[in-house]
Amino acid sequence: MTDTIGFIGLGIMGRPMALNLIKAGYRLAVHARREASLQPLLEVGAEPCSSPAEVARRAPILFTMVSDTPDVEQVILGEQGVIEGVQTDAVVVDMSTISPSATRAMAERLHAAGAEMLDAPVSGGDIGAAAGSLSIMVGGPTAAFERVRPLFQVMGENIVHVGDHGAGQVCKACNQVLVAQTIAGVSEAMLLAKASGVDPAKVREALLGGFANSRILEVHGRRMLEDDYAPGFTARLHQKDMRIVLEAAHELGLALPGAAQAAQWLNALLGQGLGDLDSAAIHRMQARLHGQDGD
Amino acid sequence: MTDTIGFIGLGIMGRPMALNLIKAGYRLAVHARREASLQPLLEVGAEPCSSPAEVARRAPILFTMVSDTPDVEQVILGEQGVIEGVQTDAVVVDMSTISPSATRAMAERLHAAGAEMLDAPVSGGDIGAAAGSLSIMVGGPTAAFERVRPLFQVMGENIVHVGDHGAGQVCKACNQVLVAQTIAGVSEAMLLAKASGVDPAKVREALLGGFANSRILEVHGRRMLEDDYAPGFTARLHQKDMRIVLEAAHELGLALPGAAQAAQWLNALLGQGLGDLDSAAIHRMQARLHGQDGD
Repeated sequence: MTDTIGFIGLGIMGRPMALNLIKAGYRLAVHARREASLQPLLEVGAEPCSSPAEVARRAPILFTMVSDTPDVEQVILGEQGVIEGVQTDAVVVDMSTISPSATRAMAERLHAAGAEMLDAPVSGGDIGAAAGSLSIMVGGPTAAFERVRPLFQVMGENIVHVGDHGAGQVCKACNQVLVAQTIAGVSEAMLLAKASGVDPAKVREALLGGFANSRILEVHGRRMLEDDYAPGFTARLHQKDMRIVLEAAHELGLALPGAAQAAQWLNALLGQGLGDLDSAAIHRMQARLHGQDGD
Repeated sequence: MTDTIGFIGLGIMGRPMALNLIKAGYRLAVHARREASLQPLLEVGAEPCSSPAEVARRAPILFTMVSDTPDVEQVILGEQGVIEGVQTDAVVVDMSTISPSATRAMAERLHAAGAEMLDAPVSGGDIGAAAGSLSIMVGGPTAAFERVRPLFQVMGENIVHVGDHGAGQVCKACNQVLVAQTIAGVSEAMLLAKASGVDPAKVREALLGGFANSRILEVHGRRMLEDDYAPGFTARLHQKDMRIVLEAAHELGLALPGAAQAAQWLNALLGQGLGDLDSAAIHRMQARLHGQDGD
């Protein structure tokens, strides 16, 4: 445990993940664009770096956790990016949720520089990040995965090596496809109950006991009943992820009509200035459309 | 336990349900349109009746379990129907999946004849019917529900009194809305994985460990991976149920775009002569569209 671990991106997700690594006894070299994000890590002994390249020079294994495809490209390939300092045989682990095809392109660039990349997006939100209970979906070579596995085990609980480069991102995209449609399904069920004069809470209770049972009916169904959309996982981030899904579908020539339709409700939420609500607020849009939101 | 219980409709669902009542020690008066359906019940001591009216004359509590709205209307209101023989204070329990509004209309007619109606559609399929583990969603007056509850407990495990007349049917409609969309979501996730060159089995495994977890991902996801669509619950019946959902949406002035879209895949399945497959075969239609079904 003598090697320094790198961590770039210390926002709502990255910060608790990095803190868990420190709690587990690892020495961290960290970088973040904003000074405010850095501070809580420095207080517990992490060493600040002025650039992603400097992190890469100091750490044979480093993590990136930023917002979107261009952010990861900037951190890895940009000026003073990881690629300018990366060690031979280093492993660069991107835990952001971004494009699978952009991931494969970056993995090639890093491979040409003598390093390996893993894509390892997560689900579980900031609560799972703080609890160290994230689901982690990993793409990339097996040897690199095995080297990083002990670190994944500090940050998460369900760690699956899905396949080669990009497979983690594809798996996350599949997750978002299914989550978005299940939310829309729960929402329509609640809507139909209420419009029919039937108590949606009773309907949820009955459905939880049967084949329609899901975590989403349980957790998001409750959010819809209570009209309480404190995130959780924001509509803004879910919308971003669905853009990645639909871009992938476009590239692949794949019809995903259910995903495309669910994404429209997220668009409407963002258009109404409600992007910071939990994405279960799809139900608020469907309810508003039918005048069910006034009571 | 001296009263005779009536049971009308002894098909793939009704037969095992009626058999469970006999096993529990109840005396049954039964009617079915087809002699072949009647035979297994007569062998274990059920008493045959020549018409629904005759069942109603003999049984203060009687069940109907037939296919669709017109079938229930025929059994209850038609010539030699239940209403012609129904006892004062009888409870007529319709366990078919039919229109909520037609249910309310029949409940009114029975009420005018001095009897009560419960709507009590089920989920769990013929396997749940045989095992006595059905989910039963009940609408109607509380007193009638309490009288019938011991009989429900013989046939099912999750028994929820959802609300007044029609509420059971509304709840079942909500169930089918959610199940159809979740199937479509699982299918699109599998499709995206495969088109991206990623093993859908690994994706399912990863997703089962996270927030996207559901019974449908577990059970129907496996069906999709194995391309094995032995029912379960047939596409034909799910299509019928979605027609009921969309008719209710039409009556209510309710937009259910996700349910409407999922129903289209069921239409395609029926159009391809595949109505006897499990409704998870929505995935076969989506795969066929993308040439993924040839391998």
